[in-house]
Amino acid sequence: MDKNIPYKTYLEESEMPKQWYNVRADMKNKPAPLLNPKTKKPMTAEELGVVFCDELVKQELNDTDPYIDIPQEIQDFYKMYRPSPLVRAYCLEKALGTPAKIYYKFEGNNTSGSHKLNSAIAQAYYAKKQGLKGVTTETGAGQWGTALSMACAYFGLDCKVFMVKVSYEQKPFRREVMRTYGASVTPSPSETTNVGKKILAEHPGTTGSLGCAISEAVEVAVGTEGYRYVLGSVLNQVLLHQSVIGLESKIAFEKLGVKPDIIIGCAGGGSNLGGLISPFMGEKLRGEADYRFIAVEPSSCPSLTRGKYAYDYCDTGMVCPLSKMYTLGSGFIPSANHAGGLRYHGMSSTLSQLYDDKLMEAVSVEQTSVFEAAQKFARIEGILPAPESSHAIRVAIDEALKCKETGEEKTILFGLTGTGYFDMVAYQKFNDGLMTDYIPTDEDLAKGFAGLPEV
Amino acid sequence: MDKNIPYKTYLEESEMPKQWYNVRADMKNKPAPLLNPKTKKPMTAEELGVVFCDELVKQELNDTDPYIDIPQEIQDFYKMYRPSPLVRAYCLEKALGTPAKIYYKFEGNNTSGSHKLNSAIAQAYYAKKQGLKGVTTETGAGQWGTALSMACAYFGLDCKVFMVKVSYEQKPFRREVMRTYGASVTPSPSETTNVGKKILAEHPGTTGSLGCAISEAVEVAVGTEGYRYVLGSVLNQVLLHQSVIGLESKIAFEKLGVKPDIIIGCAGGGSNLGGLISPFMGEKLRGEADYRFIAVEPSSCPSLTRGKYAYDYCDTGMVCPLSKMYTLGSGFIPSANHAGGLRYHGMSSTLSQLYDDKLMEAVSVEQTSVFEAAQKFARIEGILPAPESSHAIRVAIDEALKCKETGEEKTILFGLTGTGYFDMVAYQKFNDGLMTDYIPTDEDLAKGFAGLPEV
Repeated sequence: MDKNIPYKTYLEESEMPKQWYNVRADMKNKPAPLLNPKTKKPMTAEELGVVFCDELVKQELNDTDPYIDIPQEIQDFYKMYRPSPLVRAYCLEKALGTPAKIYYKFEGNNTSGSHKLNSAIAQAYYAKKQGLKGVTTETGAGQWGTALSMACAYFGLDCKVFMVKVSYEQKPFRREVMRTYGASVTPSPSETTNVGKKILAEHPGTTGSLGCAISEAVEVAVGTEGYRYVLGSVLNQVLLHQSVIGLESKIAFEKLGVKPDIIIGCAGGGSNLGGLISPFMGEKLRGEADYRFIAVEPSSCPSLTRGKYAYDYCDTGMVCPLSKMYTLGSGFIPSANHAGGLRYHGMSSTLSQLYDDKLMEAVSVEQTSVFEAAQKFARIEGILPAPESSHAIRVAIDEALKCKETGEEKTILFGLTGTGYFDMVAYQKFNDGLMTDYIPTDEDLAKGFAGLPEV
Repeated sequence: MDKNIPYKTYLEESEMPKQWYNVRADMKNKPAPLLNPKTKKPMTAEELGVVFCDELVKQELNDTDPYIDIPQEIQDFYKMYRPSPLVRAYCLEKALGTPAKIYYKFEGNNTSGSHKLNSAIAQAYYAKKQGLKGVTTETGAGQWGTALSMACAYFGLDCKVFMVKVSYEQKPFRREVMRTYGASVTPSPSETTNVGKKILAEHPGTTGSLGCAISEAVEVAVGTEGYRYVLGSVLNQVLLHQSVIGLESKIAFEKLGVKPDIIIGCAGGGSNLGGLISPFMGEKLRGEADYRFIAVEPSSCPSLTRGKYAYDYCDTGMVCPLSKMYTLGSGFIPSANHAGGLRYHGMSSTLSQLYDDKLMEAVSVEQTSVFEAAQKFARIEGILPAPESSHAIRVAIDEALKCKETGEEKTILFGLTGTGYFDMVAYQKFNDGLMTDYIPTDEDLAKGFAGLPEV
């Protein structure tokens, strides 16, 4: 054990970030703007305001201000479950016999079980401030839906959640957590929306996808007085709020006098990865420091590693704006792999641009190897990780083992986004030796690409 | 918000306790000794050594040393998930409109979901040090079993868990967590032991109890080479290990310059309550300070408030030593209320003696009012509490509301022992309005008392 590095580093409340960091301000090549799906012209604030809260629209479109104040109410809420610890994985290092120094930023110590609460509370705050009655959203693994239901309960907002059907069935208790916080939860696709009916007619028996659930949630938000839609990933505003993860990590590392070499995060829509790397990426963009960034995605849904960089629909129902991103096509319905939070066909436009500019790497990993890493991590470090987070663990372990071969003492940081307490159906499959891997064929992907819109 | 009191107070690693506190050393009236059920004479270390690890037997019998060193390996493991935060419940205070200052010591931020890990790691450590192959145990809500499976995975010990059948069925995913950590889990009563077969023959269809599960676990431990039995509550050794909760709380309060007036904990076998109050009780016993201590138990299993102070069997199968305690009789099988961790017929002999000496109060509360408090707490403070912990929340709220009436600015500390993530079947019942209360009649209790042994 390094004498000056504790197992866990917490910031004092007075050291916690008072501003979010907006990485777009430091990007030379800005992420491409959202387009109106009909006119193919950039979405205006007015158009976006039909779907999103006004203040969030401003944040969505702001690619010039590097820092945006965190309102005091949100700072106060953050203090209820933050700062999250920066943990030195001494036991994992020892078990691997690696000279690498492994750290993780653990975001799972709150009831939503993940980092999702960081943006949920911000979005609920702005909705409340605008005088809205409630919000609608989708959820995959259920972590975002839980986070939003917690945030809405705190501010007294109604919360309508569309939950991807496969997750709804695999995670019955997630629904009860959301209900305990007063939210309503509908499995998606559902018969309660036009777009849900259409998808069910076209794909009877579908287990759903985030893309479907988004379409349903947007339809309800736009059609209900006093409601807006909120989203837990992909959007610029979400990456902005999630920058609190990276900001806290950076401050903690500075206190310790340590600089990471490699920063690893799992990537579904990009909320965790974007939030974790943003402030470090800012340094890299400004030429102040260099880091290796690695996005980890499931090989069953490989938007960065095998997708196309193109304008695409954010949702299956094609009701949302077009976003330029690495995508598998909005018609791509991923296999029912167990990392529900990573089952999205596209990727944050900010991260897509950074990846296209070769400022970030990406790898894809298979499910069984992810759960092997998850089980190892649970037994050694004590925390039962979410399947999503375990993608990052897998690659952190792989990088640490490379260091063992080369003898390099690299410092690795990965984002441990959440806990797997509601993922025991997946763990059970793994424990019983029944888990399989799925890698889409080129033909599978071609079908998704065929649906890309012309822009 | 008090300017000098943060939401959460964490100790530095260097401030964490290096010794456990043994409250028995400061008690004038020592807890009565365990008796051999056949000879009715005090159990010797040799006799206890058949069931328990040698070092733990020493701790069990030691009522003179006030402080016992925490081995370095255990201190290191504690650093993986401790210190636990001492939280100021600002939002709850505001919601209640009370002048009271409410604090809670939150023990749920680890994968076992509760304080149980504090003793599990200690017991596993001593088993490993003695060169044992494995340990057996029982679990009610599943938190103790999970904690022990984590501790055994860490030290490479085999772990056999007997899980009370009603919990096994209500909490299918708990079993998978334990399996993920490599433990075997058997619903109790089972056909795998003689005592299990006997109980099933006498009470076909029983949903089990902690008392049954203990009997089965002890039978297997005694009958298997290289195994010993470990227990998550009731015993003196467990209260000793759990004193880390109270010690950390006390140090944190001293840092803040605050002194609690009322200390509240839920009480099943006494592990949390004993651990939380021990160091404060020590001050009271030594005449250095005064506190009100309140034990909260479910009205469905009211060992302190309606039980008898007498020698009784610790288990249903009557294979364990006799313990003098407040008890409902080892034959009392509590109703299937949802706080599995509080479904035990007896109470720690240390706490029983303190209660009998009127150094501590006790109240019983009904299940539905407990879940009302749990839901309120979840929505206001963000954390979804375990049903067990929610008993303490209920009474903390009640005491805070009394302060609202009287205008007194009392400082209340309660133990938030764990999270309810695996208790969603119970929450679902509550959410659906289907939860009921159960209070045993005097006749019900008389049946249990009839089985008390003559000593």
